[in-house]
Amino acid sequence: MTTSFRARKATAWLAGSALIAIAPAAQAEEGMWTFDAFPTEKVQGEYGWAPDQQWLDRTRAAAVRLTGGCSASFVSPEGLILTNHHCVVRCLQDLSTQDSDLVANGVNARQRSEERTCPGQQAEVVTDITDYTGDITSAIAGKAGAALVSARDARISEIEASECPDRETTRCQVVTLFGGGQYKLYKYRKYSDVRIAWAPEFKAAFFGGDPDNFNFPRYAMDAAFLRAYEDGKPVDTPAHLKWNPRAPQDGEITFVVGNPGSTQRGMTGAQRAYQREVALPNRLLQLAEYRGRLIEAMRGSEERTREGGSRLFGVENSYKALYGRMQALNNAEFAAQLDASEAELKERSAGTLEGDPWGDIAGAVSAYRNFDEAYGQIDSSGGSQLYSYARTLVRAAKEREKPNAEREPRFSDAHLPLTEKRLLDAKPTYPWLEELSLRFWLSKTREIMTTDNPDVQALLGKESPEAMAERLVSGTGLADPETRKALWEGGLAAVEASDDPLIKLALSQDARSHELTEQFEEEYEAPVTAAQAKLTDARFAAYGDSIYPDATFTLRISYGRVTGWEENGVQVPFSTQMGGTYDRATGSDPYELAEAFKANKDKINADATYDFVTTNDIIGGNSGSPVLDKEGAVIGAAFDGNIHSLGGNYGYDGNLNRTVVVSTEAIQQALEVLYPAPELVAELAGD
Amino acid sequence: MTTSFRARKATAWLAGSALIAIAPAAQAEEGMWTFDAFPTEKVQGEYGWAPDQQWLDRTRAAAVRLTGGCSASFVSPEGLILTNHHCVVRCLQDLSTQDSDLVANGVNARQRSEERTCPGQQAEVVTDITDYTGDITSAIAGKAGAALVSARDARISEIEASECPDRETTRCQVVTLFGGGQYKLYKYRKYSDVRIAWAPEFKAAFFGGDPDNFNFPRYAMDAAFLRAYEDGKPVDTPAHLKWNPRAPQDGEITFVVGNPGSTQRGMTGAQRAYQREVALPNRLLQLAEYRGRLIEAMRGSEERTREGGSRLFGVENSYKALYGRMQALNNAEFAAQLDASEAELKERSAGTLEGDPWGDIAGAVSAYRNFDEAYGQIDSSGGSQLYSYARTLVRAAKEREKPNAEREPRFSDAHLPLTEKRLLDAKPTYPWLEELSLRFWLSKTREIMTTDNPDVQALLGKESPEAMAERLVSGTGLADPETRKALWEGGLAAVEASDDPLIKLALSQDARSHELTEQFEEEYEAPVTAAQAKLTDARFAAYGDSIYPDATFTLRISYGRVTGWEENGVQVPFSTQMGGTYDRATGSDPYELAEAFKANKDKINADATYDFVTTNDIIGGNSGSPVLDKEGAVIGAAFDGNIHSLGGNYGYDGNLNRTVVVSTEAIQQALEVLYPAPELVAELAGD
Repeated sequence: MTTSFRARKATAWLAGSALIAIAPAAQAEEGMWTFDAFPTEKVQGEYGWAPDQQWLDRTRAAAVRLTGGCSASFVSPEGLILTNHHCVVRCLQDLSTQDSDLVANGVNARQRSEERTCPGQQAEVVTDITDYTGDITSAIAGKAGAALVSARDARISEIEASECPDRETTRCQVVTLFGGGQYKLYKYRKYSDVRIAWAPEFKAAFFGGDPDNFNFPRYAMDAAFLRAYEDGKPVDTPAHLKWNPRAPQDGEITFVVGNPGSTQRGMTGAQRAYQREVALPNRLLQLAEYRGRLIEAMRGSEERTREGGSRLFGVENSYKALYGRMQALNNAEFAAQLDASEAELKERSAGTLEGDPWGDIAGAVSAYRNFDEAYGQIDSSGGSQLYSYARTLVRAAKEREKPNAEREPRFSDAHLPLTEKRLLDAKPTYPWLEELSLRFWLSKTREIMTTDNPDVQALLGKESPEAMAERLVSGTGLADPETRKALWEGGLAAVEASDDPLIKLALSQDARSHELTEQFEEEYEAPVTAAQAKLTDARFAAYGDSIYPDATFTLRISYGRVTGWEENGVQVPFSTQMGGTYDRATGSDPYELAEAFKANKDKINADATYDFVTTNDIIGGNSGSPVLDKEGAVIGAAFDGNIHSLGGNYGYDGNLNRTVVVSTEAIQQALEVLYPAPELVAELAGD
Repeated sequence: MTTSFRARKATAWLAGSALIAIAPAAQAEEGMWTFDAFPTEKVQGEYGWAPDQQWLDRTRAAAVRLTGGCSASFVSPEGLILTNHHCVVRCLQDLSTQDSDLVANGVNARQRSEERTCPGQQAEVVTDITDYTGDITSAIAGKAGAALVSARDARISEIEASECPDRETTRCQVVTLFGGGQYKLYKYRKYSDVRIAWAPEFKAAFFGGDPDNFNFPRYAMDAAFLRAYEDGKPVDTPAHLKWNPRAPQDGEITFVVGNPGSTQRGMTGAQRAYQREVALPNRLLQLAEYRGRLIEAMRGSEERTREGGSRLFGVENSYKALYGRMQALNNAEFAAQLDASEAELKERSAGTLEGDPWGDIAGAVSAYRNFDEAYGQIDSSGGSQLYSYARTLVRAAKEREKPNAEREPRFSDAHLPLTEKRLLDAKPTYPWLEELSLRFWLSKTREIMTTDNPDVQALLGKESPEAMAERLVSGTGLADPETRKALWEGGLAAVEASDDPLIKLALSQDARSHELTEQFEEEYEAPVTAAQAKLTDARFAAYGDSIYPDATFTLRISYGRVTGWEENGVQVPFSTQMGGTYDRATGSDPYELAEAFKANKDKINADATYDFVTTNDIIGGNSGSPVLDKEGAVIGAAFDGNIHSLGGNYGYDGNLNRTVVVSTEAIQQALEVLYPAPELVAELAGD
């Protein structure tokens, strides 16, 4: 459940039409390409021009990944980072108090000393990519099941530890591409002190709110600026993008550079059936009820509205994105095209494949159906930040006693610093929200698995979900970072001696959680990884280099163009103008004008391009990605997709699928007129 | 949305296994048979005994339909009615006050004068069934679309008006069977003053709550007694069932006599696909979020918990029932068997069918997909009782000016008395619940149809859903039955002159609602009815009299036997014992003992059969049905189904599908020990 609450924007899918490509060769403008396999010839063929290696290198060096689940870019030599407002909203909330609501009012740091650190945030820039496919393939040769997963993870931990000995400023991550067909080491320069420099009012950033999310036209100033610091000073970033505050031109080529979180275009029919029949409806139903509880619990309380705001946004955003996915898979035409692509690959690879990878995956899906409820409900923190701390502390205490290569990935030497930062950074938690989340999780667990299930009985004992949630939250001391630090440093002895109710719950649940994870690795992950590696070979054999890997929250580049689309016979224009905000405003939430808009109607340029759409192929995790022109200059920040884009998790449709971007022209208006920040304007201009 | 909130128990379906029958000849124990087509020979063949005509006539005469959506039976000569507690919970709530919580504490009328009338409740007994198929088929011959629907409804209104001139004590209803293959006139003796005589504590009736609902083992005293009155006196009911407070015997034959609400076993593949892909997930998602809002709005307030209790029960009951249906349709094996049945019928009827009824239905489903969201959201009362009153008043004012045959069915002369009773009976409404429901409906309508949709703009104008709901509820006077009466009697002039905000909203929405209804009739109902009539002919031609019509909330009889079932290799016993309640109790809600259970542990018979299961084929609407033995005596009241029964909407599986019954032995214990009612005991015994 936790991941569904992350404020990622899922930004590129589709809901059914003619031109869908998937496993076979990518269609025009389809693809989330790795930087070491950019389809230069194809772009050259389509546009009569393509970026050269220098263009690509320069761009890559300025691209930033935010560990919270977003993308961004350096846009000045002094560590200034452009991203989306919705990527910093949790930071704004964490830094707010009853007297200072940074979400509602925004931030405008007049000087560097006013820029405040975002808890748990880290910025990362790729510096090197190395292929390790042969190395890891040898390490797992002849192995299967959980043994395969252990061997793979052990080898990955070794590589990551040895290639990034400096854990203060670098991070190594071995990435699995093509679902197991390739392994690559990504080396990052990391910045673990990231501060908020500028953010607009919430009503400007998220004008139109949930009803307009994943729809177009949009009138949203979904932009913010962060700054990376080191040793208390802004970092030097000579590699940064040029800022060009101009309007996009109809038809011009655009590039989106960022970290799409996850796509599932390599899924087989059996996996899609499981998504359609089980995973998506069940997750949506939980999100829907949780959303209902949140909305009602926040009603009429300004404090709770502020405290629960980013959680509600995350829930609503996930809900809409997953709903779009379910619709796409339930669209008969779309589903038929995905099936046809799969059938084509089967035909092309007939006789050359060892074993039956499709059958292996179908078998793994069947096995998973037998324990998915327990795995989903029991191996969970129930949406509670505090219980998540407790689970991390308990598992870390056990894992850290093992040698590096034997630990779970998130506790390996390479990943421990980020895990520790996330655990120990001070940030607020809200008892009402914690209790609501635990109460909901416990009651859903009992509902779904039934009262007579042994896991449910072990979890609840004779308590009601409501009483247990109240006892856990009122009794825990884990909201205090010092308490967490003491338990982290005290290790297993301290954890086992603790009488914190959440630590005790996590301890009592840990063995069963671990068992379910192992079952998942043994019965699902391992056979699927092995089968997908075979399918990847088959795809390369059938389609050559014209294929790209599924998204993995690693750096990708997509190309496309600025253009509208046709909706039920009507042409949707490719952009909105800032003045249109006043026409759309109703005076009631979420169509209420921000104060700055109200005050500056005469001053802003009503004709300035506000938001615009392109055909770039992106998805959740791409939020905050710079949108570049031919010159490599930033002309916007991607922040959303249109409604048709929601099936892009499974396949891309260039006729309908659109990326939604806030223009640099609009951001410049905000910096000059709405929320004046002359120093930033000068910094962006390179003055 | 409204119907989903009705407290019907949906009580017989399945989730996937070997023996499923549908359109073809019914399997052993499958079938919700009409009394004029009971499969005597089949039962004789399977059990070596079958009820004779006298047995059937006697039983039919004692069977009661409750217009709230439940079944029941007369069990004494003085109008005493046995039904489920959950069928009277709304009545208990309506009669409760802050000082007297009849839901929590139950009712035990010591004398007749303490029996209080349930608002809006009506009891009906079938007295005659006449075939009108030829008559109505001629009336619609050569017609199609909305014209067909109008002609049919006009003829039905004429028949109903002329056959039941006495509208005080009779009601006529022409029922469409086999989706349009047969039309029968049901004549009822009606009793519109129904009073509550006895009900246990909620904690006894619904022990195990939502987690145990649709599961087994159950430990629930889901029973209550009503009494029918006329002219202020209990009615004479010489035709009543014999009460036998004994334990059921393993394997004995049982009959369930009641009014199953609705099944969809005659649906074609196109219709099932629509259910699986669109209708079920969307309805479930709305129920889930609404449920979350309700739960949180009721938390910590005893008053709201009482006031919202029956609504929450209805929502949770519908949620679980529909979830089970979705699971059944997503079960590949189950779906394949339904498809196979359809294919068999296609094959058997090849060359004999006029036109392509399957294609016609698929076309109608496609057409419906284009306006289903508007029809679902705009032609709705949003779960608000007050707005439902307003819509009825507005539509009635227009319809009542027309001749009988031209009116909508619910305003025809035959149905007007019940419509009026439901509108004018005094019963409480709760402003917080009304506002919550309207707020939710308005916000979902905007979310689903988008802000830019003309229907949404007409509905909301520039208001937010929250502000509009507040304005409507705080400004309306429709909670007062006198206000409703004045508008009802004042007709169109009064309605149009009203400045009640809900009346004004209903007036402004009425034309569009009407248009959507007509579109539904024209593009869906008419072609589907015509096609289903052809399919019915084909089924009779292929399978003869061994088929039964889909459920229509009219009287049916099903036969079966007392027996457990096998669950993952383990045999589930067919019954629970009253003493088991104490083992299952945890002390926390919903497993908290009722006061009477706490106080009488030593006195009750721990070995008495509490709840038991049978193979009878039933579904929602059957709640409260008497369960009869070979002698025709009542041995229990059906109140639930097991989890496997939830696919029974589409097909029946005798291996897994079980009806859940509260035994007369347990009810007798309640009447003698837990909530002593010596007069009722004597009355039931015929003393």
